[in-house]
Amino acid sequence: MLQNLDLNKKLKKGEFTKQLPDLRTQLGELQRKLRRAQIPVIILFEGWEPALMSKVINQLLVPLDPRGFDYYNIGPSSPEESKHSFLWRFWVKTPAKGRITIFDRSWYSSSAARSMDAGMDTVIVKDVKEINTFERQLADSGVMIIKLFLHVQDEDRTPTDEEVCGLVKDDLELIKRQKQYIPIIDKMITATETPLAPWTIVESADEEFAILKVLKTVASRMESALETNGTASDGGYCKLEYPTIQSTPAYPKLNSDTYHTKLEKYQQKLKKVQMELYRQRRPLVLVFEGRDAAGKGGNILRITQSLNPRTYQVVPTGAPNDVEISHHYLWRFYLGLPEKGHISIFDRSWYGRVLVERVDNITPEQDWRRAYREINEFEKAMVDDNAILIKMWLEITKEEQLQRFIERVDNPLKNWKISNDDWRAREKWDEYTAAIDEMIARTSQPYAPWYIVDSNDKQSARLQSQKIIIDVTEKELGLK
Amino acid sequence: MLQNLDLNKKLKKGEFTKQLPDLRTQLGELQRKLRRAQIPVIILFEGWEPALMSKVINQLLVPLDPRGFDYYNIGPSSPEESKHSFLWRFWVKTPAKGRITIFDRSWYSSSAARSMDAGMDTVIVKDVKEINTFERQLADSGVMIIKLFLHVQDEDRTPTDEEVCGLVKDDLELIKRQKQYIPIIDKMITATETPLAPWTIVESADEEFAILKVLKTVASRMESALETNGTASDGGYCKLEYPTIQSTPAYPKLNSDTYHTKLEKYQQKLKKVQMELYRQRRPLVLVFEGRDAAGKGGNILRITQSLNPRTYQVVPTGAPNDVEISHHYLWRFYLGLPEKGHISIFDRSWYGRVLVERVDNITPEQDWRRAYREINEFEKAMVDDNAILIKMWLEITKEEQLQRFIERVDNPLKNWKISNDDWRAREKWDEYTAAIDEMIARTSQPYAPWYIVDSNDKQSARLQSQKIIIDVTEKELGLK
Repeated sequence: MLQNLDLNKKLKKGEFTKQLPDLRTQLGELQRKLRRAQIPVIILFEGWEPALMSKVINQLLVPLDPRGFDYYNIGPSSPEESKHSFLWRFWVKTPAKGRITIFDRSWYSSSAARSMDAGMDTVIVKDVKEINTFERQLADSGVMIIKLFLHVQDEDRTPTDEEVCGLVKDDLELIKRQKQYIPIIDKMITATETPLAPWTIVESADEEFAILKVLKTVASRMESALETNGTASDGGYCKLEYPTIQSTPAYPKLNSDTYHTKLEKYQQKLKKVQMELYRQRRPLVLVFEGRDAAGKGGNILRITQSLNPRTYQVVPTGAPNDVEISHHYLWRFYLGLPEKGHISIFDRSWYGRVLVERVDNITPEQDWRRAYREINEFEKAMVDDNAILIKMWLEITKEEQLQRFIERVDNPLKNWKISNDDWRAREKWDEYTAAIDEMIARTSQPYAPWYIVDSNDKQSARLQSQKIIIDVTEKELGLK
Repeated sequence: MLQNLDLNKKLKKGEFTKQLPDLRTQLGELQRKLRRAQIPVIILFEGWEPALMSKVINQLLVPLDPRGFDYYNIGPSSPEESKHSFLWRFWVKTPAKGRITIFDRSWYSSSAARSMDAGMDTVIVKDVKEINTFERQLADSGVMIIKLFLHVQDEDRTPTDEEVCGLVKDDLELIKRQKQYIPIIDKMITATETPLAPWTIVESADEEFAILKVLKTVASRMESALETNGTASDGGYCKLEYPTIQSTPAYPKLNSDTYHTKLEKYQQKLKKVQMELYRQRRPLVLVFEGRDAAGKGGNILRITQSLNPRTYQVVPTGAPNDVEISHHYLWRFYLGLPEKGHISIFDRSWYGRVLVERVDNITPEQDWRRAYREINEFEKAMVDDNAILIKMWLEITKEEQLQRFIERVDNPLKNWKISNDDWRAREKWDEYTAAIDEMIARTSQPYAPWYIVDSNDKQSARLQSQKIIIDVTEKELGLK
């Protein structure tokens, strides 16, 4: 795509000064409209010359209201960021509703650098797949993605003052190695040119030409975002026959001594697992799902009791707060993912999308239906990135839940654990059953199976879940 | 304080298992009460042995609801954190209302390490002063601070498994160098033992004794926080006679050519200043304050126009959002401070505390009165930390404001800039005048003077503010 461009496009004299003021006013106006329409926008810039890129980008920032955008210059990953997957640092920077995120370099440079380092083809193929999924998920949720490539020909030139003082660093030295990089970047651009997130190549030999083309492109894409507002994609959902949950054999009731002996033994093993995860730099993601009073908190407590707080965190999932709800629903879970060698324990999780949000009609059907695929992709990326993922469904009967609710009402120490929401959810028992069945069927994948834990007996449920964690991790870590 | 302790305190057999369950229940209950009372709590742990500390701390985490606390293990500063002042990384981690932050090591270790490296006495004196200010400001705003030191005697011992695998790192190697560190730490503890933030030394030779003492201390401090709830300190405010704003001589009206020539010249200088700041790693903080329609946005726009977006950010200050309002009012401004070599431009700022929050009765008098001192301390710390701070008040007359309001109403392109709030604030013109006068008088300090910019003429105001910035920074950077 880059090879056959006429790079010498120029403006007629006086055009720039003539057109600029109106374009600025228009962009300010569009930003306000997008905010009112609550449409999030990503504008990403790639190109050869960092000094030129900064200059052009600043001309886009100036007319925008600083209350409504974030600007990020993307360099090499920080030590903190390197502890996560390739796209993590971009996910956590995605815009909230009505806001604009501007990337001065992006996942494309980041991937191109990886490709150069690691031998291009395998990396590109893997990255391009992940990038397309990433952009599709964002676009599906209503994010407008504008991708601009500022193209210039390699030329001998003296570094600018900003480069000399180091303010503008060209970490990739793309321009110096343009010949080597052109095939990689050409391939990437072609492979990531999608209807939802198309590229615009900006001929940038003439700076003023480039600025006007950027401003015009952004304005016209913003206008089309306003026109198509609200028509989220259904993400290619298709019908599927699915089985129901298999009942698991009841675990024998334990006497108290056996329980405590076993618990002690398992907890010691978990302690070892924590250290081995750290040694091997493998992240562990534990997901606890289950109906109210199924024992999620109690299970988690018995796991964390023996662990070192430095490398585990419990991530409780409630109704999203203001900031969370204005982002993609997966955004807050990215924030909770463990860094390499650490453990995140989710007390409820992203599965809320297809459980409570479905049953309580919080999310339109089209959106929660699309979530099965999004969740599978989310988990696949996690596992591909070397994480160990264990998803446990704590299963209790309707009768057992009632007993536990009554106990919570009666016992002043447990009283705080029960609310009207719990009773309301109980009334929708059968709707939940349907949602749970479909969830298990659609998101049990070879790389991310569901484990059903019979939880009518609290003590045996705790042992079961610990046993599952120990078995899976020991196998993954080569301890068995 | 550490020298004369009986470190061999032990529990009677069976005491631990007997007392633990009730203490846990009590702590869970206290956490819920503190959440309801919206009291923020900091619990910080210092001590010699990291493995022991983690173990004890985990026994405190287990009974707490993970939805209500954050745990941080504090090691050496990350590269990101090193770009800010010593206390910055702790400020941004302070708890929101009703939440608990637990520090596994804290500003004390961080300072002790600095002292060791840099020759102890000067660092300690400076740090202790900053720490006491930091803790007082938090306590004044209602944060309960609980400081625990887990004391053990240096002994030969084999490293634990967690240490061997690196999960627990002892970056400071305090225990190995206990003899050297004891005088430093003793001095720090003594100098930071204050009524609002007292220390508890925990004799930790016996682990179970230590755990119980920690849980009991935390519980009893939490209870006293609940008892004294709402009695924030007035921070030692005292009356002061103050002058009013000096009227500045009107700047001559410019013709358009002169304006554009000068503007172009100043903008080129600002570009150089940006590079020189970067070279010298000096942060620059620009504060723009002024009444509605005084021209803050327009001034800022002319400054950023020529800059490189990589090292400047505009930080607009509106009404605080949910997250911001539940923290100390300075918290969100810490988040906006520039890293070394960067520029933050505040469009309104922390001065809202003594302007709109005072005039509109948003904040009780005792709290905004205390803010003068807090702001002076905040800015002093900034300047001590090598930042260049320039505060500009854009002054317009009541008549000029009216003209600009009318223009905004009449001009469809400027219409979005005016709201009922602006008219309401205008009605309180005189109350604002009193607040502004007192603000200028109380917060004009030799290290942080206010610059009054006559802003009745927009163009000349822009040139004035740029001239001030250029003069101050060139002097500070040794360019003149």
